[in-house]
Amino acid sequence: MTESGAGMTEGFGKRLIGVFEASGHLCVGIDPHPYLLADWGLADSGEGLREFGLRVVDAAAGRAGIVKPQVAFFERHGSAGYAALEETIRAARAAGLLVIADAKRGDLGSSVEAYGQAWLTPGAPLEADAMTISAYQGVGSIAAPVELARQGGKGLFVLAATSNPEAFATQSAVVGSGVGSGVGSGVGSGELAGRTVAASIVDEVNRGNEAVLDSTVLDSTVLASVGVVIGATVRLADFGITSSDLVSMPILGPGFGHQGADYESIRAIYGSAASNVVVSSSRAILDAGPADVAAAITAQARELAKVLD
Amino acid sequence: MTESGAGMTEGFGKRLIGVFEASGHLCVGIDPHPYLLADWGLADSGEGLREFGLRVVDAAAGRAGIVKPQVAFFERHGSAGYAALEETIRAARAAGLLVIADAKRGDLGSSVEAYGQAWLTPGAPLEADAMTISAYQGVGSIAAPVELARQGGKGLFVLAATSNPEAFATQSAVVGSGVGSGVGSGVGSGELAGRTVAASIVDEVNRGNEAVLDSTVLDSTVLASVGVVIGATVRLADFGITSSDLVSMPILGPGFGHQGADYESIRAIYGSAASNVVVSSSRAILDAGPADVAAAITAQARELAKVLD
Repeated sequence: MTESGAGMTEGFGKRLIGVFEASGHLCVGIDPHPYLLADWGLADSGEGLREFGLRVVDAAAGRAGIVKPQVAFFERHGSAGYAALEETIRAARAAGLLVIADAKRGDLGSSVEAYGQAWLTPGAPLEADAMTISAYQGVGSIAAPVELARQGGKGLFVLAATSNPEAFATQSAVVGSGVGSGVGSGVGSGELAGRTVAASIVDEVNRGNEAVLDSTVLDSTVLASVGVVIGATVRLADFGITSSDLVSMPILGPGFGHQGADYESIRAIYGSAASNVVVSSSRAILDAGPADVAAAITAQARELAKVLD
Repeated sequence: MTESGAGMTEGFGKRLIGVFEASGHLCVGIDPHPYLLADWGLADSGEGLREFGLRVVDAAAGRAGIVKPQVAFFERHGSAGYAALEETIRAARAAGLLVIADAKRGDLGSSVEAYGQAWLTPGAPLEADAMTISAYQGVGSIAAPVELARQGGKGLFVLAATSNPEAFATQSAVVGSGVGSGVGSGVGSGELAGRTVAASIVDEVNRGNEAVLDSTVLDSTVLASVGVVIGATVRLADFGITSSDLVSMPILGPGFGHQGADYESIRAIYGSAASNVVVSSSRAILDAGPADVAAAITAQARELAKVLD
């Protein structure tokens, strides 16, 4: 079985390659911080969130290929915030933008399956094209949303190595021997031993992708539906990850602009996997304000294209 | 500064002790699985979720002290699901029940702060008494919701050691030397080295609690506001955790009933920290159906009281 087989929904990886080719790698964050709502002259309310979201979508359409709403800022306003998020996502998809819901959900069993249904099921009120997800309970724990993603042509980005220093203890911790029996992951007993937590997540994502891609040669000619989040200020070597580990999976790279990384460093950070990176920028764009946000997107997309296209 | 100082909001730990004394340790899960909605004769819709939530609250009021809505099942229905969740939480709190939102959120900086605001800020549409949270990005990454909890008399349960076997590789991985510089955590450089990921989370939670409790002697006479999730089928020793590590923090123990643990094993699992455990049971109660759910809660509360009260 291949993800792009006849009669099947086109896989997320293939769709993402199309977006990269047509519109580049820039992903515009939709992060309605309270301070940004104030700067934009909008109320800190469901109505303010709606207006903010729709304006960013309008500005991004035709100037970038991907948007990433940060769900936390919508959740602050409960059901009213979620109504604004639904409208924002719907408008973005109608405008041809790929939507990554930055939700960082995670759980087990039927609960994590429900999260997958919430964000990845065609026709669901919050239907996006992909979501971010946390595997603190193991990559095997997210098997249900992985399956949903594959069935529906959707994508998942599993948190692996993030940019913040306080994450390093956990993400660089070393997996012991006698574990990694790989429930739901296909990784044989002990195969993860000696790898860091972040690297073991990359390994398990690769194994899952290999099984679906029906190919043991993962190279840059294929891009799978399940990828990882790797921050733009990490050094892969600190986690025992090599860029060849990442060569056939989508990578979401937050931390550009405001958080300190610049586009020139993309090849240095991600190496041969740089062409798989969704390059996310939020405040560096949104700080431009409502009158200049479209121009800021165009400027950032051009800067990025010098490096990646 | 102590959490229970004059003029301050009463700390969550103190409130929880009061609930344990008045109503016992049982926590009734509000998990509207699609199969349960069908069994209960309810639609798989916002209206069905609302009816399910309110019926469980009605049944729990006066028979248990704590309820735990599983947020994922409400999120499946987007803003309509969240409207049902808001109403369920409001009804539960009005009935004097302590509400733990099982959200397992996690992120960094202003995003995770927004999650804290969503669930823990007095007056927010989704205001609960406590929430579950994930620290894959480090305990330091959740500093903002920790602070919000302490200010508002709210609680946090940080995922530490969960019951599912596929979690073991990550949660038992060993922290290296030269990490644990403890941004936002107060843990000195290298102090986490050699600890498992789950144990390092327990340690960092203890350090944060000590600073706020103004006491370096954490014993069973104090209960802090920030605790952990430790599944009911784990062996603490497998993670290098001892029950004395847990003696002054709230513990959320899911996995009773349906997932295989029975109440008789509580003291064997949690040892001297057993009196801090919020004992969560969901499907073992909800499977009773709408006519018998109240009787099922009473029966479970009695069983549990034989062990813990």
